[in-house]
Amino acid sequence: MGGHMARNLLKKGYPVVAYDVSKDALEALKKDGAVVADSPAEVAANVTRLVSMLPASAEVQEVYGGKKGILSTVKKGTLLIDSSTIDPSASQEVHALAQKQGAVYMDAPVSGGVNAARDGVLTFMVGGPETSFQQTKALLDQMGKNVVYCGPVGTGQAAKICNNMLLAISMIGTSETMNLGIRLGLDPKLLAKILNMSSGRCWSSEVYNPVPGVIEGVPSSNGYKGGFGTALMAKDLGLAQNAATTTKSPTPLGSLAHQIYRTMCNHGYSGKDFSSAFLFLQEHDKKK
Amino acid sequence: MGGHMARNLLKKGYPVVAYDVSKDALEALKKDGAVVADSPAEVAANVTRLVSMLPASAEVQEVYGGKKGILSTVKKGTLLIDSSTIDPSASQEVHALAQKQGAVYMDAPVSGGVNAARDGVLTFMVGGPETSFQQTKALLDQMGKNVVYCGPVGTGQAAKICNNMLLAISMIGTSETMNLGIRLGLDPKLLAKILNMSSGRCWSSEVYNPVPGVIEGVPSSNGYKGGFGTALMAKDLGLAQNAATTTKSPTPLGSLAHQIYRTMCNHGYSGKDFSSAFLFLQEHDKKK
Amino acid sequence: MGGHMARNLLKKGYPVVAYDVSKDALEALKKDGAVVADSPAEVAANVTRLVSMLPASAEVQEVYGGKKGILSTVKKGTLLIDSSTIDPSASQEVHALAQKQGAVYMDAPVSGGVNAARDGVLTFMVGGPETSFQQTKALLDQMGKNVVYCGPVGTGQAAKICNNMLLAISMIGTSETMNLGIRLGLDPKLLAKILNMSSGRCWSSEVYNPVPGVIEGVPSSNGYKGGFGTALMAKDLGLAQNAATTTKSPTPLGSLAHQIYRTMCNHGYSGKDFSSAFLFLQEHDKKK
Amino acid sequence: MGGHMARNLLKKGYPVVAYDVSKDALEALKKDGAVVADSPAEVAANVTRLVSMLPASAEVQEVYGGKKGILSTVKKGTLLIDSSTIDPSASQEVHALAQKQGAVYMDAPVSGGVNAARDGVLTFMVGGPETSFQQTKALLDQMGKNVVYCGPVGTGQAAKICNNMLLAISMIGTSETMNLGIRLGLDPKLLAKILNMSSGRCWSSEVYNPVPGVIEGVPSSNGYKGGFGTALMAKDLGLAQNAATTTKSPTPLGSLAHQIYRTMCNHGYSGKDFSSAFLFLQEHDKKK
Repeated sequence: MGGHMARNLLKKGYPVVAYDVSKDALEALKKDGAVVADSPAEVAANVTRLVSMLPASAEVQEVYGGKKGILSTVKKGTLLIDSSTIDPSASQEVHALAQKQGAVYMDAPVSGGVNAARDGVLTFMVGGPETSFQQTKALLDQMGKNVVYCGPVGTGQAAKICNNMLLAISMIGTSETMNLGIRLGLDPKLLAKILNMSSGRCWSSEVYNPVPGVIEGVPSSNGYKGGFGTALMAKDLGLAQNAATTTKSPTPLGSLAHQIYRTMCNHGYSGKDFSSAFLFLQEHDKKK
Repeated sequence: MGGHMARNLLKKGYPVVAYDVSKDALEALKKDGAVVADSPAEVAANVTRLVSMLPASAEVQEVYGGKKGILSTVKKGTLLIDSSTIDPSASQEVHALAQKQGAVYMDAPVSGGVNAARDGVLTFMVGGPETSFQQTKALLDQMGKNVVYCGPVGTGQAAKICNNMLLAISMIGTSETMNLGIRLGLDPKLLAKILNMSSGRCWSSEVYNPVPGVIEGVPSSNGYKGGFGTALMAKDLGLAQNAATTTKSPTPLGSLAHQIYRTMCNHGYSGKDFSSAFLFLQEHDKKK
Repeated sequence: MGGHMARNLLKKGYPVVAYDVSKDALEALKKDGAVVADSPAEVAANVTRLVSMLPASAEVQEVYGGKKGILSTVKKGTLLIDSSTIDPSASQEVHALAQKQGAVYMDAPVSGGVNAARDGVLTFMVGGPETSFQQTKALLDQMGKNVVYCGPVGTGQAAKICNNMLLAISMIGTSETMNLGIRLGLDPKLLAKILNMSSGRCWSSEVYNPVPGVIEGVPSSNGYKGGFGTALMAKDLGLAQNAATTTKSPTPLGSLAHQIYRTMCNHGYSGKDFSSAFLFLQEHDKKK
Repeated sequence: MGGHMARNLLKKGYPVVAYDVSKDALEALKKDGAVVADSPAEVAANVTRLVSMLPASAEVQEVYGGKKGILSTVKKGTLLIDSSTIDPSASQEVHALAQKQGAVYMDAPVSGGVNAARDGVLTFMVGGPETSFQQTKALLDQMGKNVVYCGPVGTGQAAKICNNMLLAISMIGTSETMNLGIRLGLDPKLLAKILNMSSGRCWSSEVYNPVPGVIEGVPSSNGYKGGFGTALMAKDLGLAQNAATTTKSPTPLGSLAHQIYRTMCNHGYSGKDFSSAFLFLQEHDKKK
């Protein structure tokens, strides 16, 4: 993800100072015109605008607050934009640390996946001080097509995990419903058509139907390859559950969806697209 | 419902022979031009096309198969159309009994509610022999704007309960998600906008949002009055669960949605619109 | 089951008139001293006390109310004892039909399985008129060691499905808990010991622990062979869910347990003991 | 809790240096013979064995690792025993920090509640280096009657949250089952008796039945007052869910139990005993 994003900046003529734990990734970026650094601290010492893209809360905390971290060298007034999907409260903690150094931290998780990163058409959901939003948007516009302001720091994350929780619920719901309908004798294409003209309609039934053959060109019609992996969905649902526990918000279906995606991971579905919930639910009785 | 449907037939110039357990309802229909009968049997003795609209499986079985029931007098070749929402297997049983009398039974449950019945814009989902569909459609077109053929007898019911199961799941999912997002600091209108431009989008988030004030003119913005009652949704989810048990289809979210609507009924939400799931979930801690 | 029960009656010197759909089973009983009949009707015509043991509600309704069924020939005052596990409302329906013929119908489902039937140590949970309980008990004492009066007709079934619902919940709960504890670094035997001296204690943790090696001689320590099959548990949970829907009783955990056992059946666990819930939950991530 | 524990040490003749955020609590302990300190750091500077009892992970991290925290002054070789119920991974973090200072940290959460603390009959579940267990046990024996060694640091917490998760599941399961049985016509005392002689038996059905009047002297027979509060159960279930997410352990029933206790808190049950799950589930339909 990060590589594609940096390349889009380079293409648009922005100078880039880059760091990555992978030497190969760094080397490739160097060939494309980036200056490479030895550590997050070295990047921060040389820029006034910085974008980070990391796997989880722990890495963000280390890359910002660690020994050779960004905050050890960050200059006053620097704009820090973190595009990782992490716990909203982790974003708030890093924000507070950045503030002490006089820097501005925005959370800006993305939706759209690797292809959208490559094509520069990501959607960014941005949380942080409203006064820094225009400057943030100006930079993110180089890498995406939608940049939405969500509110104070952490609300970018909140919007992202809320969307993905509802997505998981409606994907499993669509899978259950299609499977039940098929077993009751309905043709899957016809059932999808009826749902989509009725109140059961959702993105998962309409645009990304989990039953093979109902829609062409989506993962379910291609062996559940590509798309958004079940393990990544399970991770985002874990963040949603943490946020729900912190705010004492009841999320019965979100919580059960989390358990189902976790069980799917344990049963071998980690690498398949998350629409493989249909595959998991439609299995027929068989002796082991 | 049945009264509105009969009136639409009368308006279009069809002669109607009517029966209802309510004397008042019958009297009113008489004033509007219907001939009234003393029993379902008397109706069946006088018509070649018949439409029934009843509350549940038990009533359908009684009105068709009972002592003074339709099948005791039905003429060979009569077209019987049942618009009740009942268990698909109950439709199949009545179909088999009708076949013995040489009559054709179609299941044709509706979506759209009382207002759509009055305005003649119901959607009918029709199951039964395909050879009888055109004749069925010709009649139902007088009372609705969509008449969809679903397959063999029982598939009209199947389509109806599938749609409503997915609707219940996505409504509760939307309610959980909106509540979580609000508690994480997001503005409800903004969150709805983000969901609706993303993969979390569903009919419940887009057209019938359960959070008061997000969309004008829907029950949530009117004290959860009108609309589709929680008790009716609980009933339809019970039918979905029966069908899932019969076909051994796993429906984890559909089953939990059923439990949630049942619990809501027990806690005083029976008469509120089913989008009051948001109201139920958003309650804050308080001492009793 | 039925064969073992009949043999215990024969051993105690009771004359038995028997019917079974399996010719072989009947032939075997004949060798052991039973008189064989051609139909349920023929059995009923020749006895004043009758015990039935059948797989599900539909079979009970057919064997009692069908063309060659018990109620077509039953003599006034006959005691009819049905030991099948079926829907309480089905028991009530057959009871009402029996009453019209002047016969007394009691529901008396068993717990204990095939071995307990063979050894004559079944537990019977009996519903029906209290005035007929002593006569019922006198007969069932020949085949069981506990005969418990539960109340009006249907309450025998109610007690059975209530017990099995709680059993399913605590078995899955024990499986989740043992799996979580093991992953957190606890030794399974030690964890079982701690639970059993604390408030988490239940029959499933103490007597029938689902983790292989914790207790000797139970199915989990024998490849989950024998015991009470997952498919049978799924069936009983279906009865519990029907009863919950009829009485509008919220059963969130019972309902989810039902879905889990159904999913296990679909994934190849039908024939394994129901404690294999642990096996299903403990699977580790693997690529398919 | 902490006050009762300190008093038991004083009674047995142990000198105690105490600290608490409540001045009143400290003053009371002073009267009973304790030396009072101004901060956790001051306590640590004056002892070689230390017991802490705190509400949650954040407080433990602050009291040990904060500015005036225990680890700022702790002497080499000091035995640190934390009896708080917190996240196992938080215990492991504090353990690692303590190790750097040459001190030994053990987690030793308790079960038994305030009365057991007062009477010195707590159960301690202890995690930490086995070589320090005897010394730990010698001290905890002064305050409890059971001191169980569970394994490496964090396993005391693991045992505690495993027990409470299974307890929550079986309490809700018992509540659902009793409610369903009562609605099916069973007498609650009779149903409890049947469960307790059968495989549905658990601590919640046998010792702490949630239905008023079934057992004397438990919270359900006293308006759900006293006992173990719903809000505390919800907190412990949150810890269990965090641990399940970290270890990717599927806990479908534990997760749903968490959601139910959270919903109960939001609906006014926070301060009632956790057996009030029955009260929540048994509500009948009523108009609001």
